[in-house]
Parts: sequence; structure tokens; C-alpha cells
Amino acid sequence: MRKIKVGMLGIGNIGKGTYRTLEMGRKKIEDTTGLSIEIVKILNRHPDRDRGIDIPREKYVTDAYDIINDPDIDIMIELIGGIEPATTYMADALRAGKHVVTANKAAVAANGRMLQQLAQENQVLLRFEASVGGGIPILNAITTALVSNEFTEVLGILNGTTNYILTQMAENGASYEDVLKEAQRMGFAEADPTADVEGLDAANKLSILISLLFGVGVSPEEIPTKGITTVDKVDIEFAKEFGYKVKLLASAKNVNGHVTCNVEPSLVSQEHPLASVNNEFNAVYVTGSAVDSLMFYGKGAGPLPTGSAVMGDVISIARKIEKGGAYDLQPHLRYDAGAVFDGEGANQYYVRMNVIDRPGVLGSIATTLGAHRISIETMTQRANPSSSRESMPIIFITYDVEKTVLDEAIREIRESSYVKSIENVLRVERIGQ
Amino acid sequence: MRKIKVGMLGIGNIGKGTYRTLEMGRKKIEDTTGLSIEIVKILNRHPDRDRGIDIPREKYVTDAYDIINDPDIDIMIELIGGIEPATTYMADALRAGKHVVTANKAAVAANGRMLQQLAQENQVLLRFEASVGGGIPILNAITTALVSNEFTEVLGILNGTTNYILTQMAENGASYEDVLKEAQRMGFAEADPTADVEGLDAANKLSILISLLFGVGVSPEEIPTKGITTVDKVDIEFAKEFGYKVKLLASAKNVNGHVTCNVEPSLVSQEHPLASVNNEFNAVYVTGSAVDSLMFYGKGAGPLPTGSAVMGDVISIARKIEKGGAYDLQPHLRYDAGAVFDGEGANQYYVRMNVIDRPGVLGSIATTLGAHRISIETMTQRANPSSSRESMPIIFITYDVEKTVLDEAIREIRESSYVKSIENVLRVERIGQ
Repeated sequence: MRKIKVGMLGIGNIGKGTYRTLEMGRKKIEDTTGLSIEIVKILNRHPDRDRGIDIPREKYVTDAYDIINDPDIDIMIELIGGIEPATTYMADALRAGKHVVTANKAAVAANGRMLQQLAQENQVLLRFEASVGGGIPILNAITTALVSNEFTEVLGILNGTTNYILTQMAENGASYEDVLKEAQRMGFAEADPTADVEGLDAANKLSILISLLFGVGVSPEEIPTKGITTVDKVDIEFAKEFGYKVKLLASAKNVNGHVTCNVEPSLVSQEHPLASVNNEFNAVYVTGSAVDSLMFYGKGAGPLPTGSAVMGDVISIARKIEKGGAYDLQPHLRYDAGAVFDGEGANQYYVRMNVIDRPGVLGSIATTLGAHRISIETMTQRANPSSSRESMPIIFITYDVEKTVLDEAIREIRESSYVKSIENVLRVERIGQ
Repeated sequence: MRKIKVGMLGIGNIGKGTYRTLEMGRKKIEDTTGLSIEIVKILNRHPDRDRGIDIPREKYVTDAYDIINDPDIDIMIELIGGIEPATTYMADALRAGKHVVTANKAAVAANGRMLQQLAQENQVLLRFEASVGGGIPILNAITTALVSNEFTEVLGILNGTTNYILTQMAENGASYEDVLKEAQRMGFAEADPTADVEGLDAANKLSILISLLFGVGVSPEEIPTKGITTVDKVDIEFAKEFGYKVKLLASAKNVNGHVTCNVEPSLVSQEHPLASVNNEFNAVYVTGSAVDSLMFYGKGAGPLPTGSAVMGDVISIARKIEKGGAYDLQPHLRYDAGAVFDGEGANQYYVRMNVIDRPGVLGSIATTLGAHRISIETMTQRANPSSSRESMPIIFITYDVEKTVLDEAIREIRESSYVKSIENVLRVERIGQ
């Protein structure tokens, strides 16, 4: 049995999960692939720290270049996260003729083009299934089984922390702040939750998906991104009443080569399969020219699900090494398919505001929206136990409108004497057909 | 650009869908893979019949062996369906050194072991993604990205016709017979719907999944299979009231090498992601040792979704042909993993019966069940507008029980003087954790 030697950077939670996935699956892997895969060196800057996992001490190295420059190592796994020094290590490993597998969405979103170029020049493979959707094998499906499809749309619930928070707010009627604290206590949210709750993590993943699906480069910074910190439990309650759930959606469309995208809290129709994706689960819903609508659902994070995706990439490369032949160096990330990035695009929006309850208010709002050619699908003025004549909620849902046009109309409405506050503006996503 | 030549058996709906998928996706396929794939010969026994698709007449052949024996053809696609002559054609193509791609679940379930053996002997590849779940790339995921996982469970909604019928019965309160007629009128059900509504189609697909996931051979005939013809709209209504939907589930478990399975109409908890799979959609929910729970959702039939899966296999093989090197001949269907088939196993069951409404009936039923050591999770006696004291529905849901034990208890209960009829027995599936 051919032995494939692997070096791994990082032995945090994901590193340990990857190591465990390999050990747990060793017999199955050998039976079904005929390959013996061994992680022979692991970068561990604190080899004396108890990691809570039984790994022979002699595997540990404290210098990444003990792995990068080791001619016996075929594949390097990068699991240290963050853009640097991870990008430099991966680039140097590719230059040294090693195949590279990474779970690092930030580095791939920021430097995927350069790393892919280096992989091609050095006739080696770069794979990053675990960078989007954790254990869900979506990137592999897009680049292999579904490759004959032109993709027109992707909708993703790509961040488990925010989905957990929104699910708990909906199920327990709790506030954002209370659920966040609980999530931090349970380990579902980081001490500094900014990258998750502000949508930056989802934007990194969406940037990768857009390149794979539509062949256009949109950096995470270019993606219009709004987090969940402004979602009020009142919005979740109104949404439920209207037949929606509130989810942090990462979405992108390709209409005749014009790619639009955003990451923002959105009302998702309860009929939509994404509406049943709860707690820490992720899902990616894609629409292709032949296959129509597909959804992939699973655990978007966690040591073992992420380890499953990392090992899937490692085994795929190991099979190619063993079989000989040329590597398929066609780039998975594409930046050349003739598509152009066209901003946020038109969407339906839910708007909640508080107004002074006096005759003519609804008509006045409708007139302002009409002057901006914004069509209203539904508008509701509704008293609730905490409302008074001085502060009455009005909710409306628009038909498709450019966000800039809506923003301008809302700016005008906000200046009206009867408007107390614009409470929230959220995207609306219907059943995908 | 290397040209890969393909021969195709069959130009019915799936054949046309496959041809269209290739033509629609040609530019994308060439851009992303660098390959030019051409279907050069098509078996068409009636070349003068108008097929409603623009295909050059000179591609048509009337003898399968014009394709099987053509040394210029690299890959044969088999889309004629049925066990024979499809199996013979595939076997002869493999012997002639051609790679084979098929959408034929009946032939793969019946003869996959022999065909796979022939592929290995002749150093060529056999692929059958489209045979399970139509466009959903589940087989590819199991055999590549997820290969480090030991799988413990699969639950599938694998037949679009029956899922459409059950969804429409639930949404419109219509009877099985009325919805079947409507489905036939709309082309969602065949004129002879037996293979679909009796669960045989789902059993073929489950047999393939069991071999891929658990490495044990269970023939479709061995799988305990019950169709949807006995599902009454009353069962769907009661299920809804208790928080369930009724789905035709194909399910299999592997508990320490003991594989149990069945295909039968089941109550699925509304919290379960499978509960939101409606109409003609299919889904496969698998649980692996590292990745935990995953669900793949999409169109399980139809010309273009099936064409997407067929072309995915063709392109995967074409890439390997172009890159040279040895083929990975490790079998995907496994019959040797040390697992044994162990029948139907223990499940929760819903039982609906009609009884004469007199004191002590509930207690008597509970006593009989207790004597068989069957624990009851919930039992309800419930009048409804159509019930009388002479025929009152009783519904109970058991905890896990072997089906043979339940059947024996029900046989005893049926003999009681107060029991008018045993109306239905359906499996119950809770949220997969």
C-alpha cells in the first residue's frame, strides 16, 4: 500500500478534528481507496502544552519550514487560519512542489488567485473544500459533478454562529444580546464575535462561491454586507406572522453575466427549504441551468465536520498522486468568465418604522414610495401591546427595488414629521423556483 | 483541445436531456475543463420518428453494437433503462474497453456487482450518479469528499412521483386515487405507476446506497418494502395534528456492522429537514462518523437534472482519460466490509385502528401491547365528525419495536371483539441527531 505523507500546520480545534477524522476513518479509507495516509509532521509552537489528544511528540515541529522544506512530504494541510502568515506558508509550500489543502476562507478569499496561479506554475493542486460550509461537500460538487451547469443563483446560510443566534431568538423570544451571551458561554460564539455577527465570515465564503460559480472576482470588501446586530426580536415576530423566518443570507445572482450579491439578514419564506435550516447548521442553495435547484445542508463548522472536508481533499489528491498521470490544473477559482460584478442588484425589502398614529400617514408613505417608483406588495399598520398613538409600527414589503433607490425614499420618509424612527430594513427571499 | 468521443444508448426523455445538457453547457465545460466532449453516435431504433430535438441524422445507429464495437468511442452512456438488454450492452461495452455511465437503477441494483467486476478486469470505469436522486450529486459525494466517514444512517425521499402524490394529498386534502390521476395527467406519474407507488423504484435506489455507504449487498427484493397505496388522507391529517408529515422513506441503519433497512410510508417529524421536501423533489439525509448529519436536496428526476448527473460522470471520466495515468479502479459498490444484513430492525410505529367505543378498550389494547413488551409513547382515542360509537379511531405511537413483534401484537388485538379494523401501520422518524 502506497503511503502518502502529510504535514499539518496547526493543532487547534480544527487540527485535532482533522487528525481524529483520519484516525477514526483509517480502516475505511484503506479499504475503499487502497491508500495509507499519514500525518507525519505537525506545526505546534507550544509542543509542551497539553492539547488533549494523543499524538506522538516526535511529530511536532515548531518551524513551519520543517514541513514546507521536507522533500518526503507530499501534501501540506494549512489550519492556522487568518490571512498571514498562512498565505506565505501556503505559497512557499506550493513553490516547494507540495499540494496544499486549506480550511482558511480568509486567506483563500484574499489571495486565492495568487495561490492558484502558484499551484499551476508548480504543477500541484490547491484545494479548500473546508473553507465554505464546513463539512458540506459543496465546492467539490460544483467543480466536479455539476460542472456542466451554468449557475444563476446561490443562497447560503454560511455562518453557524449567527444562525444559532437567530434561531434561538425566534424560538425563545430572547434578545440578541442575551442569546449572544449564551452562545459565547456554550462555545458557539467567539469572545470577539465581530467577524461572525457582522457578516464578514459569510462574505469571505460568498466571495469564494462567486468565483467558483460565476467566474468573477468579487473581494469580500466589495460585497455589500450587513450583520445581525440590528435584528430585533420584534422583526422576528413580525416575520413569523407574515410567514417568514429571519436568516443571515449570503446571496448572489448571475443574470446574463451581471453578478449581484450581498450578505444581510433576510426574511426567508417558510416554504423555502432554507427556512428549515436551524441552529448551527449551514446550507447552500444553488440553481444551475440543467440541475435546477439543489440544496446542501450540514454542519458548517466544528472540528470533525471540518476534518471530514479537509480529509476529503487530502484523499482526493492522494489518489491522484498514487495513480500517476498529469494533474488536472484547471483553476477552480475563475476570474475570467466574462461576467462583471454589478453591486447589490434589485431585491424585495421589508421595512419597519414607527410613526405617530394620525390619519393619512399610510397614504403619505405610499405616495413617497410611488414617487420613487417603488411598488408595495403589502403594508400593515399594527398596534401592539407596547405601542401608543405616539409610536405605532408600520411594516411594508416592497417588490424588487434597487437598494440605493429604496434608501433615497426612506431618507425622504424619515424627514416627515409623523415618522418617529426607521427601525429596520431587511431583504426578503421567496421560494426559489 | 482533446476531443472525447461518447456513444449514447437511448434517445427518450433522459437521452434528450443529456444531449441538451451537453449542448447548453458546452462553453462552460470547455472553459473549466479544457475538454471537448462529443456524442458521436446515438442508438435510436426508430430513426425516422420525430424526437422533437435537433440532432444530425447521421449520429443515429439502430444497432447497439455499432457503438459497443466502435474503437473510436471512449465512453458509452446507457439510458435505455430496465435490466435487459441494458445489462448485456453495458457488460459488452466494458469488455470492449469502454468506460460506462448509466442512469439505470434497476440494472445497477440487480447487476452492479458483476458490472463493477468487469470494469475492474478491463481497467475501465463504471459510474452511475444519475441512478439515485437524479441531479443530486450524492453518490459522488459519498465516494469522494466524504470517503473518510463511516456512515451509520441514511434516510431518503428517493421517488418524486410518490412524494408529489403525498404532498398534494396533504395540501389539498385529496384522496390517493384523485391525486394519482392528476399526477398522471401532468406527466408526474406513469400510466402504470406500480414501480413508483409500490416503493420498488425507491428500493432499487436504497439497495445502491446501502452498498456504497455500508459495504453490504442487499438486493431490492430483500428490502422490506411497502408502497403508498394504503396511505389514507385521514392518516395524513392525524400525522399533521401530531406534528408530522407522511413521506415514503427509504431508510437504512448500520449499527456495529448490523445493517437494517426498509422502504415504507413514514411519519416524519416536522422539525426534521426531510419534512420540508415537497412535491417532485428528492432528498438524501446521511449521517457520517466525522461529518455528522448532511442532507442533499434537489430534483430526483427529469431530463435536464438527470442529464446534469450523467454529464458529471462523463466529464469526470473524460478528465481522467485526458490526464493519463492509471484509473482508480477501487470499487464504489462494496460487498465486503464485514457488515451483515439484518432485516428491518426496530423502529417507532404509528398505528391507527377503529374500535367500538366502550369502557375499557384503551386499557385492553395497552395490556396486550404490554404483554408483548411494546412501550407506548402516546395513545389517543378521538371522535371525529364521521365517527360513531360503533367505529371510533384510536391512534397510538410506539417506542422502538421489532416489526415482527408489533405484527404479532396487532394480530392479537385484531381478534378482540371491540376492534372493527386495523386501518394503518406507519413508521415514525424523529429528528435525526
